Amino acid sequence: MSNPTAAILVIGNEVLSGRVADANLNYIARRLNDVGIDLKEARVVRDDKAQITEALNTLRKVYSYVFTTGGIGPTHDDITIATVASAFGVAVQRNLEVEEKLKAYYAGRVTAAALRMADYPAGAKVIWHGEQFAPGCMMENVLVLAGQPRAMQVMLEAALPLLERGVPLHTRQVDAWVRESQIADGLAAIQGRFAGVDIGSYPYRIEGRAGTALVCRGEDAKLVEAAFGAIGELLSEVGAELRAA
Amino acid sequence: MSNPTAAILVIGNEVLSGRVADANLNYIARRLNDVGIDLKEARVVRDDKAQITEALNTLRKVYSYVFTTGGIGPTHDDITIATVASAFGVAVQRNLEVEEKLKAYYAGRVTAAALRMADYPAGAKVIWHGEQFAPGCMMENVLVLAGQPRAMQVMLEAALPLLERGVPLHTRQVDAWVRESQIADGLAAIQGRFAGVDIGSYPYRIEGRAGTALVCRGEDAKLVEAAFGAIGELLSEVGAELRAA
Repeated sequence: MSNPTAAILVIGNEVLSGRVADANLNYIARRLNDVGIDLKEARVVRDDKAQITEALNTLRKVYSYVFTTGGIGPTHDDITIATVASAFGVAVQRNLEVEEKLKAYYAGRVTAAALRMADYPAGAKVIWHGEQFAPGCMMENVLVLAGQPRAMQVMLEAALPLLERGVPLHTRQVDAWVRESQIADGLAAIQGRFAGVDIGSYPYRIEGRAGTALVCRGEDAKLVEAAFGAIGELLSEVGAELRAA
Repeated sequence: MSNPTAAILVIGNEVLSGRVADANLNYIARRLNDVGIDLKEARVVRDDKAQITEALNTLRKVYSYVFTTGGIGPTHDDITIATVASAFGVAVQRNLEVEEKLKAYYAGRVTAAALRMADYPAGAKVIWHGEQFAPGCMMENVLVLAGQPRAMQVMLEAALPLLERGVPLHTRQVDAWVRESQIADGLAAIQGRFAGVDIGSYPYRIEGRAGTALVCRGEDAKLVEAAFGAIGELLSEVGAELRAA
């Protein structure tokens, strides 16, 4: 059986304008990797209803799960909840339990805008967490998370136990002081022998010296170890000095 | 006249597995912002021919420019050049001038794999730069750049002078110690009055204190200044303390 699959949909003008660097994609990628959900794609779109809708409707039909980040606060540019609702053809509905918690949290200073954070697509499952801000939600296979990284992480950790998990990919990495071009043909031959292993080659330079990270990933640990062993032999054949990780 | 538009297509399993955090999107976003090219979308896909092809063929028809990053080295997982060529229905062709430079650079240690970095889609324009590695290229409106950040930056800077530019968006930002929910309705009213200005609201917490960054962006500097002035009045009305940037 294959692992569940996923896509991330980052919603936010601020990432595309370059004002902030997205930090959520990498966090979600690592956590999905931990639980055996294969992240296959990510998209970054503007706070634009048509653009979000198109991406969401494409991704949710292709992948087991879609994680959205951003656009769930109380201001005019926070349109994720309304857009997810309309993509699923449902209304937006106030969750009274969340509303009560927000009233208690804000005490006398609550505003109508703050309470809009208790709105969810009708039929969505609220993903409760223990902290003092409005929870994210899950609408069928779409998980709606915050854009602010700490809030996103709280919501994601609360969501992961609700998801189907797969086999975490077995991963091995070795770094060597070698140019990619010295091992390219040998690596291609190894990749040809081990179709079930995903072999990646990532070059870099440190103080002018060429190094390469070689990564084997796959569901079958024995196969990954065999491919990794073959890479070790290749590195030794070309006389590459290993680099301590 | 509107600004040219762009999308970024990040190609690389290593970003989706979480092994590395992409650093290119933010760099490209900021530089495009500087030269008046509006970045509208970004996608991250695996080293997978079908997935790259689909994304590329969608994006290049919608946006003025598409910037790809990653997958242009000499190893088996570097499939960007071949995939771009096939998406455009052209062959891959060795550029002899680049090949000569690579031979000179590698001196006696050149391999057939290294010389594959002199291959480009037939008809692509090589984007020359002054450094000792194979240049990126431009195939119609698609710019093919490296994944390794420093190489990507060299290639991007060499490419920018070749592109049509627009009006850099005029941007103003103010930070205040205020909860988004206290100003949400006022902000929505201001956004309603200034349709040509993109008003973003970005909440954060510093040592438990709620702050918000308010950003106005648009092509018309006067309109941006007017919207920004209205936001200043709103913050003053609610008694929000400004935060030094």
